Amino acid sequence: MPKTHSVDLNCDMGESFGAWTLGHDAALLPFITSANIACGFHAGDPAVMKATVRAALRHNVAIGAHPGLPDLVGFGRRNMDISAEEAFDMTVYQLGALAAVTRAEGGQLHHLKPHGALYNMAATNAALAEAIAEAVYKVQPELTLYGLAGSELTKAGEKIGLRTAHEVFADRTYQANGTLTQRRQPDALITNAEVAIAQVLRMMQAGQVRTRQGTDVAIRADTVCLHGDGAHALEFAQRLHAALRQAGVLLQAGPAANAQ
Amino acid sequence: MPKTHSVDLNCDMGESFGAWTLGHDAALLPFITSANIACGFHAGDPAVMKATVRAALRHNVAIGAHPGLPDLVGFGRRNMDISAEEAFDMTVYQLGALAAVTRAEGGQLHHLKPHGALYNMAATNAALAEAIAEAVYKVQPELTLYGLAGSELTKAGEKIGLRTAHEVFADRTYQANGTLTQRRQPDALITNAEVAIAQVLRMMQAGQVRTRQGTDVAIRADTVCLHGDGAHALEFAQRLHAALRQAGVLLQAGPAANAQ
Amino acid sequence: MPKTHSVDLNCDMGESFGAWTLGHDAALLPFITSANIACGFHAGDPAVMKATVRAALRHNVAIGAHPGLPDLVGFGRRNMDISAEEAFDMTVYQLGALAAVTRAEGGQLHHLKPHGALYNMAATNAALAEAIAEAVYKVQPELTLYGLAGSELTKAGEKIGLRTAHEVFADRTYQANGTLTQRRQPDALITNAEVAIAQVLRMMQAGQVRTRQGTDVAIRADTVCLHGDGAHALEFAQRLHAALRQAGVLLQAGPAANAQ
Amino acid sequence: MPKTHSVDLNCDMGESFGAWTLGHDAALLPFITSANIACGFHAGDPAVMKATVRAALRHNVAIGAHPGLPDLVGFGRRNMDISAEEAFDMTVYQLGALAAVTRAEGGQLHHLKPHGALYNMAATNAALAEAIAEAVYKVQPELTLYGLAGSELTKAGEKIGLRTAHEVFADRTYQANGTLTQRRQPDALITNAEVAIAQVLRMMQAGQVRTRQGTDVAIRADTVCLHGDGAHALEFAQRLHAALRQAGVLLQAGPAANAQ
Repeated sequence: MPKTHSVDLNCDMGESFGAWTLGHDAALLPFITSANIACGFHAGDPAVMKATVRAALRHNVAIGAHPGLPDLVGFGRRNMDISAEEAFDMTVYQLGALAAVTRAEGGQLHHLKPHGALYNMAATNAALAEAIAEAVYKVQPELTLYGLAGSELTKAGEKIGLRTAHEVFADRTYQANGTLTQRRQPDALITNAEVAIAQVLRMMQAGQVRTRQGTDVAIRADTVCLHGDGAHALEFAQRLHAALRQAGVLLQAGPAANAQ
Repeated sequence: MPKTHSVDLNCDMGESFGAWTLGHDAALLPFITSANIACGFHAGDPAVMKATVRAALRHNVAIGAHPGLPDLVGFGRRNMDISAEEAFDMTVYQLGALAAVTRAEGGQLHHLKPHGALYNMAATNAALAEAIAEAVYKVQPELTLYGLAGSELTKAGEKIGLRTAHEVFADRTYQANGTLTQRRQPDALITNAEVAIAQVLRMMQAGQVRTRQGTDVAIRADTVCLHGDGAHALEFAQRLHAALRQAGVLLQAGPAANAQ
Repeated sequence: MPKTHSVDLNCDMGESFGAWTLGHDAALLPFITSANIACGFHAGDPAVMKATVRAALRHNVAIGAHPGLPDLVGFGRRNMDISAEEAFDMTVYQLGALAAVTRAEGGQLHHLKPHGALYNMAATNAALAEAIAEAVYKVQPELTLYGLAGSELTKAGEKIGLRTAHEVFADRTYQANGTLTQRRQPDALITNAEVAIAQVLRMMQAGQVRTRQGTDVAIRADTVCLHGDGAHALEFAQRLHAALRQAGVLLQAGPAANAQ
Repeated sequence: MPKTHSVDLNCDMGESFGAWTLGHDAALLPFITSANIACGFHAGDPAVMKATVRAALRHNVAIGAHPGLPDLVGFGRRNMDISAEEAFDMTVYQLGALAAVTRAEGGQLHHLKPHGALYNMAATNAALAEAIAEAVYKVQPELTLYGLAGSELTKAGEKIGLRTAHEVFADRTYQANGTLTQRRQPDALITNAEVAIAQVLRMMQAGQVRTRQGTDVAIRADTVCLHGDGAHALEFAQRLHAALRQAGVLLQAGPAANAQ
């Protein structure tokens, strides 16, 4: 993979609901370049969506739809045996809802990134991936589709003609075949912030990631997923943001500047 | 009110949900000119919305968003003490969802008509009416806003600069002040189809309706509400459709041809 | 398996929701001995539950809780990747809700049968099966647990000390290992009512079922599942009911009279 | 009103939902005597309910059902135009669900207190109040019904034969007619903790409350509502708890010891 001169820092946002607050949206916005905003199925409600869109516009952060499974109590994290057509339908619906909220605030959508179980299922299930890509393409073909780097979802997006952004993780380890180490494995998470930042920089600068097996594997890193919740989310976002700027990496939404 | 040469026949549609079916959508489509399609809050789900949009496009029937209160079990018929801002937010959200479903099917939205309790509250509550009108205006100002003839809702639409369609009822009686007779009154409903059809024709041709008090009152009749459910819904739609054609009334969606 | 002198005819009921009606509950009640009543997660709402309980009490039909996955739009038919603890929690909740509705009407619960995907997952997943059995046991140990004949669910019920009822299907074919032929197989369904009735009678009288492979396999048939929806549901229920009475089979709720 | 030797400190609990946390339940439990646990309609889910019941049992705190309107996004705080029958049905359902969760954990319900808009509507609407009281009476007549002191709800409970607990507020001011000052009035809230504590002590010891008009009005104070959320909730609970103990008031769940 070629070196990239720019990268996008994305974060899931707008995951509050009604009386419930989740995440440090306001504090994180200065350090990210794109926000994936929940659309009401796994989190988010029309009022939360509007407030989050407004905040993103104030910070000039690119706005993306973040559709999830219809599983509010499970926060969209439990796999559901949905058909490809159902994936298409729920993507169209949620995309449209956020697009209207954004338009009402004077902005426009930039991308779409599925949430949780929908994201994970679409990474490996080609039929679901193609349904999601088709939904985006039929509603707003100018949007960028965010998906796990090298997954079925980015593949489906490219196949149908969408701009895609390959997503990488600062705090997850990779396997020799380029996939993420499963969370139940002992070495799945990188808890040392220095190591996590170094992993991202190397992805940018060398187009490679060192795997758990000790080998290097090529990876396309258009966008880095930052966590919006948890004790250290804000501090890590600040540190990664500073390290990338110091390294001369341009921070901007969407696919990397010189990605193929 | 001037005579009108055209009228719109609208019907609520897409009010099935999941495994449940409601209404005679397919049978009614040939006899109407615009369909108000439920958007998921009081009825409708993404799959039902898509199927209904497809059917409407096949019949060249104008497609409208039909947003409701977030009350699935109550079918959006129970008044809720929502704020104007909440009315704005839920209208934007549902409008956007149906717009995307329609765009994915190659069509475009034509109008918006609130459902049930939201429609009724917006007929008399100016703040709610203005919030709904503003929502439509900010998202798709080219849409026509459907509301009860002479209500706060049509007033709010006109004030903000939307095209509006004043809705009348074939099977409801009117009061001397131009409002509908409340349903709990004994004479609220017109059960004789002949009488109901005659009432519509007179609205078209004379711009007037005979009230329960025996006087005439001026009424603007851009669009007639047809019921989608119930034993006689289909038969009445057919008869009204035939009577209007025989009377030389042009059937077309939206405001009447020579309305103000 | 021994011959049985009695059998239970059960049917899923109360699967309407809000404005939507599903099933022929009133017409079927005279022909069944136990009703599995939806509890609000996949179908049913508090008003529907009450009306259904009342109708069951009027017909002296045993009342069972019919808990489902929290998937209203999917009618609880889509597998969800829930934990055993979540299965326990949702079973307790729904069981309690229906128990209270029943008590308010002067009746009492008789059994519990999971719905749709929850039923199917519990038939083969021992952890889910044990969680459901434990939920019943901890809340009302006097209830009978209905599950697919010879499944993990009936096994879990027996293990924890519940009365269980093994459920068989009149209109499904069986495999040599005693499982149902999967629906996607060509021979999965028995569409001839005579054949279906004969299959049930042989299960009662011989404790055996003829499999697709032509061999016989032992089966315990405490309760037969009747469908509540569909064009021929009522007619088939009437015919099976009549055939069983003519054959001298006692129709009563719960485990068969001389089951071990 | 007579002096009372005991009082109950109650707090709404279990108002988290899925991934969202609300309230300081664990920290507050040592300082209260009864917990009103949300039942899934306005907040709470089966897992949250179980965890909250467990915590309450550990602290020997009386467990009450806290049913709300079916308005998750509005947290049950928006009035809905429900019928008395709907109030009955939703109370039965939610009461049963929490009763089962409690029984599964080896405990038993002690009381029921409606939430938010349902509580407020039932305070002044006799038909709703009677429906709620009847629901409790028909399902578990041994429960205590909590309602605003001197309201239609406590009146309905007493009329049908339930034990009732009259609820007072430490941080709200009262009108000469015994009602709460409406929140939109400038003097509605008591922000000084000393004053709030003194108000409660006087209610206990004198059976009276000084109104905004400067007069005293008799009030029955069986139970004091503590807030579970907000910056000072915990501190105030601790101070009130300490002040009551110092004043020799017995802290125990339910109606006051010598209430009539």
